[in-house]
Amino acid sequence: MSHYRIAVIPGDGIGQEVIPEGIKMVEAAAKPFDVTFEWVEFDWSCERYHREGAMMPEDGIEQLAKFDAIYLGAVGYPGVPDHVSLWGLLLPIRRQFDQYVSLRPVRLFDGIACPLAHKEPGDIDFYVVRENVEGEYSAIGGIQFEGTEREIVTQQNIFTRTGTDRILKYAFELAMKREKKHVTSATKSNGIYHSMPYWDKRFANMANHYPEIQTDQYHIDILTANFVLKPEHFDVVVGSNLFGDILSDLGPACTGTIAIAPSANINPERQFPSMFEPVHGSAPDIAGLGIANPIGAIWSAAMMVQHLGHDDIHDVMMGAVESTLKAGKALTKDMGGNANMQEMMAELMAHMPS
Amino acid sequence: MSHYRIAVIPGDGIGQEVIPEGIKMVEAAAKPFDVTFEWVEFDWSCERYHREGAMMPEDGIEQLAKFDAIYLGAVGYPGVPDHVSLWGLLLPIRRQFDQYVSLRPVRLFDGIACPLAHKEPGDIDFYVVRENVEGEYSAIGGIQFEGTEREIVTQQNIFTRTGTDRILKYAFELAMKREKKHVTSATKSNGIYHSMPYWDKRFANMANHYPEIQTDQYHIDILTANFVLKPEHFDVVVGSNLFGDILSDLGPACTGTIAIAPSANINPERQFPSMFEPVHGSAPDIAGLGIANPIGAIWSAAMMVQHLGHDDIHDVMMGAVESTLKAGKALTKDMGGNANMQEMMAELMAHMPS
Ligand SMILES: CC(C)[C@H](C(=O)O)[C@@H](O)C(=O)O
Ligand SMILES: CC(C)[C@H](C(=O)O)[C@@H](O)C(=O)O
Repeated sequence: MSHYRIAVIPGDGIGQEVIPEGIKMVEAAAKPFDVTFEWVEFDWSCERYHREGAMMPEDGIEQLAKFDAIYLGAVGYPGVPDHVSLWGLLLPIRRQFDQYVSLRPVRLFDGIACPLAHKEPGDIDFYVVRENVEGEYSAIGGIQFEGTEREIVTQQNIFTRTGTDRILKYAFELAMKREKKHVTSATKSNGIYHSMPYWDKRFANMANHYPEIQTDQYHIDILTANFVLKPEHFDVVVGSNLFGDILSDLGPACTGTIAIAPSANINPERQFPSMFEPVHGSAPDIAGLGIANPIGAIWSAAMMVQHLGHDDIHDVMMGAVESTLKAGKALTKDMGGNANMQEMMAELMAHMPS
Repeated sequence: MSHYRIAVIPGDGIGQEVIPEGIKMVEAAAKPFDVTFEWVEFDWSCERYHREGAMMPEDGIEQLAKFDAIYLGAVGYPGVPDHVSLWGLLLPIRRQFDQYVSLRPVRLFDGIACPLAHKEPGDIDFYVVRENVEGEYSAIGGIQFEGTEREIVTQQNIFTRTGTDRILKYAFELAMKREKKHVTSATKSNGIYHSMPYWDKRFANMANHYPEIQTDQYHIDILTANFVLKPEHFDVVVGSNLFGDILSDLGPACTGTIAIAPSANINPERQFPSMFEPVHGSAPDIAGLGIANPIGAIWSAAMMVQHLGHDDIHDVMMGAVESTLKAGKALTKDMGGNANMQEMMAELMAHMPS
């Protein structure tokens, strides 16, 4: 009998709507197995920021440290500048818990209308492996001559050998487990003078240790073009924090909707809890309408139970997602349907093994 | 009678193939008009780098300064690291001549199969306005603890008020001349702590001066997703050096091929020559095969003659491009056809008014 304690941070906007549905799906899927969950909710959010002047309490990280995993909705809401809300919650969690891998599957499902012409399920099926704690996301920098015509803002990017090598290694190890055994590196070493040539050098070095793996690299500009023009080319795509961020929104868009895309913020050494969250944001435009697509949250929860060691529960959840999409009866608006979230949830539940 | 002296830098790979065709098109289109051109060729390239250890001579910039415009093919070739070739030629030209606007039209033409499902010509028709001399493309930074496990690379991004405001202003002025009057800002102020919130502030400030213009802003990740999901939304999209670079490859990919995409590196104050170049690179994989698509180079040349004040010649050239694509008889491989470059050129010439 396994028991897990999960820290739940629904956050803002539709985060508050989809996270409870993800929990319901886990509970339903786990029933036949000898596993129980305890869900402890934290109201850390932009609402809290408005009320108390901080996204989370000062000892927030310590509170989370005791959990087996973190399940997060979305953070950010109009009225709180994005860099304040994100650097007050999401980004410190990723960093303090050294969740240096952001793993983001991109898959075209049967039943979803693909925005790319002539693509079939199976054509798009790859992973974006994103460096998640350093690189372009940095608070180092500042402004000089503020308020004058001469204002100048510097923004530092930081790439370490440790940080670069370990994400590359994760990507190669993942590719070793896949059929195609192919790693693509996202770079921009023709324009960005220091960090990206360094990234290329470490990539070449890592590739030497994996002679079985086929590799290539693209500058980020043409790489985004190729996501549209030949998505079937990709297997594992590894990129820096920023490039991985871009590719893991663009990839899912090419499969029809970013609302289904999940992400796992992983600390592979398991010194700290990992965090699971949909790729989509808080979506203020549809928050409160009850029409959010819960699949991003559900798929993220499935990645969470898998990370905890339960492939079986993961597979049950993803089986329900796949067959619901294939049936195509209760799709939300972002997928071209007109079901609301509860109608889609009913359909998902109906597709669970009884 | 106008006479223009153009500096021609074919550069590497297919640059050497497409640039002569662009010149032929200008000459043919200019015939009925009272305009003559002198084309002065420079062999600055990776080949030259191999031979002489530098992409261009030390007084290269001075040599170019005397011309009315610069017409460039593509730079970069295997054997010379990209950051060496680009920082040895293309990027210094952009900077020394303060070509701070990179203007990049994105248009779906009649006759080209769109990789996005259900899109028609007219659905995709916007401009990417890219900051072209500062931002993420910076040679400031370096490495410490080199060769050890503790290696750390810093990469500085530099945003100035002058540099930010003038590109935003250019975008708003461009939008004022268009029907939709809509400017979208590419940002990433939720993750990139200093530069992007600053960019947003300057964008909001500039928007205040243009009450007629409708504005919105998207983080670069979801913006790339929206290029695929709703390209018809966009009119003028303004971005930093890196974001503009990405969007101006992704945009053309969504219209079928990046090989037709042109770019103008403009010094709007005309203190220095502006430079015109296709968006595509030197394409080592197809160089020498005679199958390159010349339209990116031709469209760039058309932007050049327009910049020099000759809308009439521009329109003749673009008329030939439009009717050739619509006829669809001699498309190159990247557009799904099987014509080689000369066959497409013959067709383009046949579509010129006689
Ligand atoms: C070759 C490279 C440095 C260049 C850039 O990134 O500016 C190219 O991609 C472009 O878009 O003009
Ligand atoms: C909200 C934002 C800071 C975040 C990121 O850029 O990492 C999000 O876009 C993501 O992809 O998880």
